[in-house]
Amino acid sequence: MEPGSRGAAPGGVSVSAVLPAGGSGERLGGATPKQFCAVQGRPLVSYAVRAMERISWISDIIVVVSPENIETMKTIIEKYGHRRVTVVKGGITRHRSIFNGLKVFAEKEFSSHLLQKPEVVIIHDAVRPFVEEDIVSKVVMAAKEHGAAGAIRPLVSTVIASAADGCLDHSLERARYRASEMPQAFLFDIIYEAYQQCTDYDLDYGTECLHLALKYCKTNAKLVEGTADLWKVTYKRDLYAAESIIKDNLSQQVCVITNVKEALAQVGLLLPESLKSQIKVEAISISLNKNDSRVQNIISGQCYNFVCVNDKRCAIQETQELVDMLEKSNIPLFYPVVLILVHLDISENNSFSIGMEDLTTIKKFARETKKKNILVYGLLIQYK
Amino acid sequence: MEPGSRGAAPGGVSVSAVLPAGGSGERLGGATPKQFCAVQGRPLVSYAVRAMERISWISDIIVVVSPENIETMKTIIEKYGHRRVTVVKGGITRHRSIFNGLKVFAEKEFSSHLLQKPEVVIIHDAVRPFVEEDIVSKVVMAAKEHGAAGAIRPLVSTVIASAADGCLDHSLERARYRASEMPQAFLFDIIYEAYQQCTDYDLDYGTECLHLALKYCKTNAKLVEGTADLWKVTYKRDLYAAESIIKDNLSQQVCVITNVKEALAQVGLLLPESLKSQIKVEAISISLNKNDSRVQNIISGQCYNFVCVNDKRCAIQETQELVDMLEKSNIPLFYPVVLILVHLDISENNSFSIGMEDLTTIKKFARETKKKNILVYGLLIQYK
Repeated sequence: MEPGSRGAAPGGVSVSAVLPAGGSGERLGGATPKQFCAVQGRPLVSYAVRAMERISWISDIIVVVSPENIETMKTIIEKYGHRRVTVVKGGITRHRSIFNGLKVFAEKEFSSHLLQKPEVVIIHDAVRPFVEEDIVSKVVMAAKEHGAAGAIRPLVSTVIASAADGCLDHSLERARYRASEMPQAFLFDIIYEAYQQCTDYDLDYGTECLHLALKYCKTNAKLVEGTADLWKVTYKRDLYAAESIIKDNLSQQVCVITNVKEALAQVGLLLPESLKSQIKVEAISISLNKNDSRVQNIISGQCYNFVCVNDKRCAIQETQELVDMLEKSNIPLFYPVVLILVHLDISENNSFSIGMEDLTTIKKFARETKKKNILVYGLLIQYK
Repeated sequence: MEPGSRGAAPGGVSVSAVLPAGGSGERLGGATPKQFCAVQGRPLVSYAVRAMERISWISDIIVVVSPENIETMKTIIEKYGHRRVTVVKGGITRHRSIFNGLKVFAEKEFSSHLLQKPEVVIIHDAVRPFVEEDIVSKVVMAAKEHGAAGAIRPLVSTVIASAADGCLDHSLERARYRASEMPQAFLFDIIYEAYQQCTDYDLDYGTECLHLALKYCKTNAKLVEGTADLWKVTYKRDLYAAESIIKDNLSQQVCVITNVKEALAQVGLLLPESLKSQIKVEAISISLNKNDSRVQNIISGQCYNFVCVNDKRCAIQETQELVDMLEKSNIPLFYPVVLILVHLDISENNSFSIGMEDLTTIKKFARETKKKNILVYGLLIQYK
């Protein structure tokens, strides 16, 4: 999926998302609520927003934060260039915050500009940074059909009930139960109706949206087996894990930038295609233009590896522009960015078309960028 | 607690531990069972064994592994110098493995040398590398009183039951339920009786020891609130988290080695005492002797920071011995080991007693060890 383009939603429904981000993160220890903790220099909530933002068929992303964090959230949106995001003031509990998020689509007096009510609304946590389009799409499809749907995972530990004396009452048969995770999705009218009907007790002590849909709208949510990466950052160890996963993802992600002309397109695509089978290719066949919002999106998406396929003799100038963009972006350069310049040569001439002068230029350029932790490599491909 | 010394068990009972380590780790992805995955160069199971081994009142530690991993486990025990450990062949399920572990204390024909039957047996997972003496002690005490006890944690996600059609049947009220974690402990006779009574179905499909004690011995286990660090390594992200926690622990741990004489002991202890309030002090007041098993234990325990308090003018020779020990140990030197030489001076003389020659020697020594990623610092303390 190329960033920036708007694809069709699964089943052709209109879809928006609400991300409750009002929690205090007391289980994590430390003063900063976990959704604002920095992972690789970027707040956790920004990863969750980005995960939603990358899904082109999600229209609006509502982030619900506690009143004291509204400015922080707005700063994050600006700093990381998030789009389609509306910040909404949360309530004192999770359910009240989600309800506030939903009101933006339904109650004129609540928002300065009423957003277009979606058919299906996704609810996802700000502290679940990893969610792929595939599972979101499955949950949305199931919600369209069943009225409500949620991702589930097998239980990691046996669940037990304790008696009043602090002793074991009974243990649950692990295979019959599941952990309810996020994302969840609902027909907007169903979940909004449920929130309007539910009691103050529900709003204050409940946590499970699927439960509200069942209790107040008689909607039995469809349960969708989720992937292991849906887990919620709860403890400090989860922040450690998130950091390592993000580093791993970065190293496996590559952006291919090519300006080769039509006639060479097939040749130019061979490399991206073969890369694709090995690693996650973020975007292919986009030309390097600093005004191109797609390039900006990818760079702010913290891609750490770039392959620039070029048929010009020495594409230093364009690469310099990319380096400039990287420097201006908010990408933290603790880890090296790898930049591979591929010079495609399809001439009949057997001799190398890159001369000593070009080589010296590339080497000098690479030496300079290395100081900025950007590693430049050159590759000459002769194709006949 | 100084390693090597045997303290009294809580309540004066005899205690041993069984660590099932026979799992295949299929949820982790990858060929190596998770308990054998290396974290900071050391297999996960070795951390769990060490956690038990550090508790001086645990007599025997039974590690139950699948037949194909017996040699691997024995190699690990030898490599990391584990003591009090017996390796036992596991069964095809978790319950069968634990049962095999218990048989070592009870059935002559099962083991070449029958181990002393403990009053209380701890059951802990090989994939829970972090467990502190405090919680183990609480669980053992509760088991002595109630017959069975287990650590519990609050649920992270809501638990739901699904209907046959894959839709939500009902969700559990999160506050009423707990996740059953490890360690658990039992009066040996109770858990052994339960395993002898239980059905093949229990042995093949069950996972919860507390359930067996309840079902077959009418023993309602006491539930003990555990700490957040009791979690089980299940997914790859948990390995990442374990690695970060181990690194964190290493940096907060210091071993103080001192050879100061009786008269100076009080002075020599001021530093360790003040360190103790800030960080985890592994051992104090041990003299540096390469034949001292306590020093060997600490070094193989992967302590990364050492403070050597000395009243000799320049204790390079002893420090050289410590560096040699570190190099010969299996400590992975990816992260710098910090070695602080403290020269205690209690003479009446106001002038510094370390001369230029000594300083030059220390500097030269520090330059050499730095190449090995061991950072040596010198500190002169004058005390009058």
